[in-house]
Amino acid sequence: MTGRMLTHDEFDAAIRQVGAERYHNLHPFHKRLHGGECTRAQVQAWALNRYCYQEAVPRKDASFMSRVFDRDLRREWVRRLLDHDGYGEEPGGIERWLILTDGLGFSRDYVTSRRGALAATKFAVEAYVRFVREEPLVVAVASSLTELFAPAIHRERIVGMLENYDFIDDEVMAYFKRRLTQAPKDSDFALQFIKDNCRNREEQDACVDAVRFKCDVLWSQLDALWNAYVSGEIPPGAWRPGEGMAKT
Amino acid sequence: MTGRMLTHDEFDAAIRQVGAERYHNLHPFHKRLHGGECTRAQVQAWALNRYCYQEAVPRKDASFMSRVFDRDLRREWVRRLLDHDGYGEEPGGIERWLILTDGLGFSRDYVTSRRGALAATKFAVEAYVRFVREEPLVVAVASSLTELFAPAIHRERIVGMLENYDFIDDEVMAYFKRRLTQAPKDSDFALQFIKDNCRNREEQDACVDAVRFKCDVLWSQLDALWNAYVSGEIPPGAWRPGEGMAKT
Repeated sequence: MTGRMLTHDEFDAAIRQVGAERYHNLHPFHKRLHGGECTRAQVQAWALNRYCYQEAVPRKDASFMSRVFDRDLRREWVRRLLDHDGYGEEPGGIERWLILTDGLGFSRDYVTSRRGALAATKFAVEAYVRFVREEPLVVAVASSLTELFAPAIHRERIVGMLENYDFIDDEVMAYFKRRLTQAPKDSDFALQFIKDNCRNREEQDACVDAVRFKCDVLWSQLDALWNAYVSGEIPPGAWRPGEGMAKT
Repeated sequence: MTGRMLTHDEFDAAIRQVGAERYHNLHPFHKRLHGGECTRAQVQAWALNRYCYQEAVPRKDASFMSRVFDRDLRREWVRRLLDHDGYGEEPGGIERWLILTDGLGFSRDYVTSRRGALAATKFAVEAYVRFVREEPLVVAVASSLTELFAPAIHRERIVGMLENYDFIDDEVMAYFKRRLTQAPKDSDFALQFIKDNCRNREEQDACVDAVRFKCDVLWSQLDALWNAYVSGEIPPGAWRPGEGMAKT
């Protein structure tokens, strides 16, 4: 590979630049969602599909840990898994996401079956699980770094959604509030890890590419949502408004 | 596959029969170890090699969890991972194993590098990681069921080793004492899981075979130890008595 190694500051800046150009806060669906322009059905479709991403995260983290021979790194990483799945009394992030889908009227069985989710959503999140299982460890760590950009979007989301939708209340936004404190701890660790462990420019470039890849994973989910539920081209088998509701 | 499904009791008995015929408590190295006939170097070789197995267990459990879409099952299974790696204040089983290798004079770097371990040991434990990653989930669960037979061997080991070796004390046996309470919880769950989830005789037979496979993983490690350190045919690159000691 050509080129000298980036300094830690240059490397940091290159990663953040990817976020500035590609993170899904720039997607028109995001603006529509937070700006109060979504219909209830569009918010439902978003929550239903995004569940697939939430659900994949602990499998992604377990995939990563299954490759790690360094016990200290596994002990650090397992916190992510426990944050999502919960442990003991702590219900975890997936449970909090299901409180959001409860609040939107879905039956839990329907949501967790993933059968109404868009195929494009499932392909995107499983591509992320595969990436973390197969890419070099330092590159796999880098793919988590969209968390650097998450607190800003979560803050916007909490304010925007509470203000703009009468069917969204404080309780169902619990997931995002919790992530405001979890995500920065995780991303600080991951950023330091890749700075400390990249041995050459090629690995640094692969890490920056991993953040691009992860932005693609997030962006393509919103593209699919837009196409299905804003443009109205719902693919065969995907959720249609009114389906999958809990019996009341 | 031919044959009717086994009843739960027959299935249980078939699994326990494998243990009665193949569990490594029947291996001559085990008898030698607990009977006080091992030299200090043979005990050292055993602890050094067995570290590789301990070290692989959390990667095996993470491999399993990376394939599980059922959050309740992941939440149950993660306890095994935390038991081995530790979490927060809890040091975990691997740390307790390292207290044993400390007590035997090894440097921690040497042990955790695995470079003195027998190739046959590493092949066996990585075959276990692969098995759990690739086999059907119910079969992967079944492969953990040698834990059914572990408490008896642990009890024998604690008594036998404390009595017979003046270089073994209570502190270094902490690993086995802890496993006396952890293993039964784990094996009860796994046994119930395979009873509840096998859908036909073929799957039941595959589960019994998984326990045979796992017994092979354990047995072959003791064969390799015997050949190297009792028969004295130490392979190139493997630990030789006196190597890898901590500076005192």
